[in-house]
Amino acid sequence: MYFASDNTGPVHPKILEAIGAASNGYAMPYGADDLNAQVTARIRDIFEAPDAAVFLVATGTAANVLSLATLSQPFETIFCTPEAHIHEDECNGPEFFTGGAKLTLVPSINAKMTPETLRTTVTKEGSRGVHGPQRGPVSITNVTERGTVYSVAEIAALTGVAKEFGLATHLDGARFANAVVATGSTPAEMTWKAGIDVVSFGGTKNGCMGVEAVIFFDPKHAWEFELRRKRGAHLFSKHRFLSAQMLAYLEDGLWLDLASRANAANARLARGLKQVEGTSYMFEPEANISFARWSRQGHQFLHDAGAVYLVWNDDLIGNDPDELLEARLVTDWSATDENIDMFLNLIRR
Amino acid sequence: MYFASDNTGPVHPKILEAIGAASNGYAMPYGADDLNAQVTARIRDIFEAPDAAVFLVATGTAANVLSLATLSQPFETIFCTPEAHIHEDECNGPEFFTGGAKLTLVPSINAKMTPETLRTTVTKEGSRGVHGPQRGPVSITNVTERGTVYSVAEIAALTGVAKEFGLATHLDGARFANAVVATGSTPAEMTWKAGIDVVSFGGTKNGCMGVEAVIFFDPKHAWEFELRRKRGAHLFSKHRFLSAQMLAYLEDGLWLDLASRANAANARLARGLKQVEGTSYMFEPEANISFARWSRQGHQFLHDAGAVYLVWNDDLIGNDPDELLEARLVTDWSATDENIDMFLNLIRR
Amino acid sequence: MYFASDNTGPVHPKILEAIGAASNGYAMPYGADDLNAQVTARIRDIFEAPDAAVFLVATGTAANVLSLATLSQPFETIFCTPEAHIHEDECNGPEFFTGGAKLTLVPSINAKMTPETLRTTVTKEGSRGVHGPQRGPVSITNVTERGTVYSVAEIAALTGVAKEFGLATHLDGARFANAVVATGSTPAEMTWKAGIDVVSFGGTKNGCMGVEAVIFFDPKHAWEFELRRKRGAHLFSKHRFLSAQMLAYLEDGLWLDLASRANAANARLARGLKQVEGTSYMFEPEANISFARWSRQGHQFLHDAGAVYLVWNDDLIGNDPDELLEARLVTDWSATDENIDMFLNLIRR
Amino acid sequence: MYFASDNTGPVHPKILEAIGAASNGYAMPYGADDLNAQVTARIRDIFEAPDAAVFLVATGTAANVLSLATLSQPFETIFCTPEAHIHEDECNGPEFFTGGAKLTLVPSINAKMTPETLRTTVTKEGSRGVHGPQRGPVSITNVTERGTVYSVAEIAALTGVAKEFGLATHLDGARFANAVVATGSTPAEMTWKAGIDVVSFGGTKNGCMGVEAVIFFDPKHAWEFELRRKRGAHLFSKHRFLSAQMLAYLEDGLWLDLASRANAANARLARGLKQVEGTSYMFEPEANISFARWSRQGHQFLHDAGAVYLVWNDDLIGNDPDELLEARLVTDWSATDENIDMFLNLIRR
Repeated sequence: MYFASDNTGPVHPKILEAIGAASNGYAMPYGADDLNAQVTARIRDIFEAPDAAVFLVATGTAANVLSLATLSQPFETIFCTPEAHIHEDECNGPEFFTGGAKLTLVPSINAKMTPETLRTTVTKEGSRGVHGPQRGPVSITNVTERGTVYSVAEIAALTGVAKEFGLATHLDGARFANAVVATGSTPAEMTWKAGIDVVSFGGTKNGCMGVEAVIFFDPKHAWEFELRRKRGAHLFSKHRFLSAQMLAYLEDGLWLDLASRANAANARLARGLKQVEGTSYMFEPEANISFARWSRQGHQFLHDAGAVYLVWNDDLIGNDPDELLEARLVTDWSATDENIDMFLNLIRR
Repeated sequence: MYFASDNTGPVHPKILEAIGAASNGYAMPYGADDLNAQVTARIRDIFEAPDAAVFLVATGTAANVLSLATLSQPFETIFCTPEAHIHEDECNGPEFFTGGAKLTLVPSINAKMTPETLRTTVTKEGSRGVHGPQRGPVSITNVTERGTVYSVAEIAALTGVAKEFGLATHLDGARFANAVVATGSTPAEMTWKAGIDVVSFGGTKNGCMGVEAVIFFDPKHAWEFELRRKRGAHLFSKHRFLSAQMLAYLEDGLWLDLASRANAANARLARGLKQVEGTSYMFEPEANISFARWSRQGHQFLHDAGAVYLVWNDDLIGNDPDELLEARLVTDWSATDENIDMFLNLIRR
Repeated sequence: MYFASDNTGPVHPKILEAIGAASNGYAMPYGADDLNAQVTARIRDIFEAPDAAVFLVATGTAANVLSLATLSQPFETIFCTPEAHIHEDECNGPEFFTGGAKLTLVPSINAKMTPETLRTTVTKEGSRGVHGPQRGPVSITNVTERGTVYSVAEIAALTGVAKEFGLATHLDGARFANAVVATGSTPAEMTWKAGIDVVSFGGTKNGCMGVEAVIFFDPKHAWEFELRRKRGAHLFSKHRFLSAQMLAYLEDGLWLDLASRANAANARLARGLKQVEGTSYMFEPEANISFARWSRQGHQFLHDAGAVYLVWNDDLIGNDPDELLEARLVTDWSATDENIDMFLNLIRR
Repeated sequence: MYFASDNTGPVHPKILEAIGAASNGYAMPYGADDLNAQVTARIRDIFEAPDAAVFLVATGTAANVLSLATLSQPFETIFCTPEAHIHEDECNGPEFFTGGAKLTLVPSINAKMTPETLRTTVTKEGSRGVHGPQRGPVSITNVTERGTVYSVAEIAALTGVAKEFGLATHLDGARFANAVVATGSTPAEMTWKAGIDVVSFGGTKNGCMGVEAVIFFDPKHAWEFELRRKRGAHLFSKHRFLSAQMLAYLEDGLWLDLASRANAANARLARGLKQVEGTSYMFEPEANISFARWSRQGHQFLHDAGAVYLVWNDDLIGNDPDELLEARLVTDWSATDENIDMFLNLIRR
C-alpha cells in the first residue's frame, strides 16, 4: 500500500537487465557511446522528428532547468502555473540555471492554465518596457502535478497563445507516458504537432532508475544545450548507463505498457474511493495520481495499518480529529490489484 | 503640469551647489573621501544608530538589489507585494544579484501587505523542505508604489511576523522622506525601532541628482556589502560627488522640507480632484502620489493641453472614448501651487 | 588495449548486483532511503569522522562544484593548479555554481602545487582590498590530472599555508582510492588529519556506475549543501541506487582492491614502456595514469592495431611523422596483464 | 603633488556647468531625455559610425562588465592580459555579469598582449570540446594599466587574430582619450576601423564626474544591452545628468584637450625622473601614467613632504630602507607644471 510517489517503486527488470548488459567491455564516455546513438534514432522515430536533438540526463529537474535555461534569457520571465514543479519543487533551480529569470504564475484550474489566463498574464507581464522582465518561454506540465491531463487540443490552444507573442514552449513531461496513454494521442501529436518546442521526456517515474530525455525538435540550440549540461555537471562520464535505461524503456513499447499499468491502477483506486462514504474525491482521476479527502482519524487508522501516501495540506494540520486531510495517492507500474484492494478495504472500515 | 514621476524634476540648488563645492582639489577615490565619513556620522545621528554601516550608491535599484543580495541566499525566497518595485520594475535585478533567489508575492490591499497575508504566505512557502526555496527576507516599501503609507505600527506588526520566522527585514525607502513626513515619525521609529534591519534611504526622488544610502543597523554584513557593491560595478571612483549630494540633502533638514513640499502639493492636487465631477479618486492620498480615473476623452484633452502623467492601465487601452483610464500623478519638491491649480482648472473643463 | 580513461570500463559485478538488490520493493526518495543511512555510517567509520556530513551525487563535477560553491562566496577566488579538473574540464561549472567566483592558478610542477607557489599566489591575490576578489578555498587534486600523487605530508604542508590565511580546503578525490593505495595512508590521514575540510570521494572512475560522495568533516554547512544540491538538480529521487553503489563499493574494502588493481596495471605498463627504445616516459608513474611520448608514425601503428588512448597535445598536431606525441595511458580495475602485455608487444615493434 | 590616480582630481568647470544647466525644468527619465539623443548623434559623428548604438553608465566597471556580458555566453572564456582591469580590479564583476564566464589570461609584455601570445592562448583554450569553456570575446585595454599604448596597427593585428577564430572584440577605453592623443589616430581608426566591435569610452578619468559611454558599432545587441543595464541597476532615472556630462565632454574637443594636458604633464614628469640618479624608470611613458622605482627611504621622504601616489608592489614590502619600491604616477587634466616641478625637486633631493 505504497502510494507516496512514483519514484519510490522498483526499477523494471528489463531496464535493470539492460544496465547489466551495457556493462560489458569498454565504451567511450560522455555520450559518445554507441547506445546513445541508438537512443537518438529511436526517439526521433517515436516522435516522428528526424531532425530532433536528443540529450539524456539523470533527473527530471535537470531536464527542466537545462531546457528552460537554453530557451530563456536572464532578463526574461517564464510562464507556468502556481502548481508547476519548476516553481514548487526545484528549489529555485530554474532561477539558478537561467541566470536569474523570473517565473510568472498563470492562474490555473485544477493545475491547468487556460488560453485565457495565459493570454491575460502574458499581455500584462510584457507591458513595462525595460523596467519589467521580457516575455520568455511558456512551460506546460502534462500530466499536471494534480493528476489532471491536458488534451492535445488544449496544449495546441496554449501554444497558439504563446506563438502569438513569439514565445518558445516547453513541456514538462516527467509523466509524459501517462499523459500519452490517458489521451490516446501519439508522442508527435502531444508535442511538436501541438506546437511544443522542447520536451522533458520522463523515464524515472515510470520504471527507470534515473533517466530523462530532453528533446529539441529544432536542433539549433543543440550545442548550447550540451555546454549547459556539462557546466551544470549533468554530463555523465559513464553515459552508456543512461543510454541503456532509455533504450530498454523504449523497446517494444515498454514505456507505454508501464504507464498503462500505472494509470489503470489509479483508475481502480479512484473507482473504489468514490464508493466509500466519508471520503471526498477532489479531481476526476485522469492518469496515475488521485487526490481525496478524509478525516484525521481516518488518516491515523490508515497510517497505522501501513498505508503510505502524502498528506498534501500538512502545513495546515491542527489537532481536530474530524478535520479533513487531503491525501495524494500515486500509483506506478508496480502497483497490484491486491494492494489497491487491500487499501480500499481498509478505507471502507 | 509635470506629474509623470518624482524623477523628472530639477535637482535642488543646494545640492547642485554642494556638488560644485566638492570638486575643489583632490580627494581619495572609492569612498575614502572625507565627505563620506561625514555622511556616515550624520546618518548615524539622524537614525539614532551609532553602529550603523552606511553606503552610498547612485540608483534606487542598486540600493535594493545589493541590500537584498546581502540578506539572502540564492536558495531562498524574498517576500514582497505584487506591486513592489523589486518585483515590477527592476527587470529581474533581485534575481540577478541574489544569484537566483525567488520573489514570493504576498497579497496586498492598496499595495500594503498585512500581518495576516504575510503570515499565511510565509507559513505556506516554507513547508516543502529541500524541494522549495527557504524563507528569506521580507521587503516592505514605504511610501508604497500606489502612494499609500504604512504607519510605524503597521511596519512593526509586519516585522513582528518576520521575526517569528527568524527572517531579516528590508525597507525600500525610495520615498522614505515622504513616509516620515506623512506619518510624523522619526527615522529611527520608522526603521530599527520598528524592527527593520536594512533600509534603502532614497535621495534621488526627493531633490538629489542620483544618490541613495543603504543603512545596515547591524554592521556585521558591512564588508560583504562593500564587495557586492564593487563587483556589481556600483562603487564610484569619484565617490565624493555622491557624498556631497547626501550631505547637502541631510543639512538643516532639507530632506524633510523637500518631502513636505511634495506631499503638500499632492494633497492640494487630491483635494481639487475630489471636487471634480467625472473623476474618481482611487486611494486616499497619503504622500506624494495620487491615482485617479477619468475618461479617454478627458485624457486626450489634458494631454493636448500639456499635462504629463502616466496612464497606469495602458496595457488595457482600447479605443472607447468613454473608457476610464487610471492616471498616476506624482509631485516632487518643485511642484508649485500655480501648476497644480492650472491642472485642476483644465480638469474642471 | 583500452587506456582512454578510467571511465570507459565496466562496472564491477558486485556493484551491479547491489543495484539489482536495491530495486526490491519500495524506498523513500530523495535520500531518505535506509541504504543512505548505512552509507553515512560506513563513511564516518572509514574516515574516522563520527560527525562528518555525507552526501551522494552522480558525477565528479557535481561533487566538486557543489563543494566549492558551499565553501566560497561569489566575490572570492579559488586556488588550484592550471591542470586542475575544476579549471580545465568542468566548462565553467565552478564559476557557475559559485555565482561567479574566480579561479586563480597556482604554478605547479608535474601538476602539483607547492607550499611556496601557493603562498606566493595567495599573498599576491589578496592584496587589492575591495578591488580584487577575496581569498577563497584551496582545492587540491589527488591523484593529480597528470598521474602524480601528493603524499600526506605534502597535503598537510599545503593546508598549513591555507590555514595561515584562514582559507578552507577541498580535496578533489575523483581518484581518491588510487591515492590512498599509492601512499599507503589511511583515508583520515589523507584528509582531515592533513587539514582537508571537504573531500570529493570518487567512485565512478574506480568501478562504480556513477556515484561520488561529498564529505564535510565539519557538518555546519550540511543543510546549505543539501539545498545547493537540490537547486543544482543533483538530488536523485531514486536515491537508493546511489546509496547501493556506494555501499557495495565500500564493502569489504572493494574500493581499495579495485584501486590496487588499477595502480598495479599501470605500474606494469610503465615498467614495460621504460624498456622500449624510442618512447620517452614523462613522469614517474605513481598511480593509474602514465604519460609517454612516441612518434606520430608509432601512434598510427598502435591506433590501427586497436589501441585506444588520448593524445594529450592534439592541439599542436601537425603532419610530421617523426613529431613526438604525448600519450595519456589510464588503467582501471578491469585492466588485465594480457592486455597490457599485448600493448607493450605492439610498442616494441 | 597628487599622482594617486586620474579619479582623484576635480571635475572640469565646463562639465559642472553643464550639469547645472541640465537641471532646469523637467526631463523624461531613464534615457528618454533630449540631451541623450544629442549624445548619441555626437558620438556617431565623432566615431564616423552612423548606426552605432550608444549607452551611458556611471562607472568604468559598469561599461566593461555590461559590454562583456552582452558579447559573451556563460560557458565561454574572455581573453585579456593578466594586468587587465577586468581581471585585477573589478572584484569578479565580469564573472558575475556574464553568469560565470571565465577569464583566460594572455601573456603580455608591458601589459600588452601580442598577436602571437593571443593566437597561442586562443588556440589552446578552445581545444577541449565540451569539457572546457568555449572561446569568447577578446578584451584589449588602451591605454593599458601600465601606461603603455597600443598603436592602431597593433590593435588591428590583435583583432585580426580574434576574427580568425570568429571572436568578438572589446576595447576597454577608460583612458581612450589619452590613447587617441598619444597615437594621433582618430576615434574610428582606433576602434571599428581596427576591428573593434564594442568600446567602453571613458569620461570619468578625464575630467567628468562619472560617465562612460558604451558604443556598439553593430547595433544588433542594443536592446539586450539596455535590459542588462537595467537589471544591473545601472539605468539612471535622472539620466539627463549623465547626458549633460558627456555632451559637455565632447563639446569643442574638450575631451581631447583634457587628455592632451594629462599626457603632457606625464611626459614632463617622466623627462624629469629620467634625469634623477637613484630612480629607475620602468616603461617608456606613452600617455598619462608612469612607473618608477626608488628606495623605501626616498618614498618616506616624498610621502612626508606631501606627495601622493600608489606604491605598486606593496604586497612585497618589508622593512629594508634600501629596498626599491615601484611608484605609479598618474596625471590628469588638472596637473600643473608647478606641481610636477615641485615633485621633481623633491626627488632630486
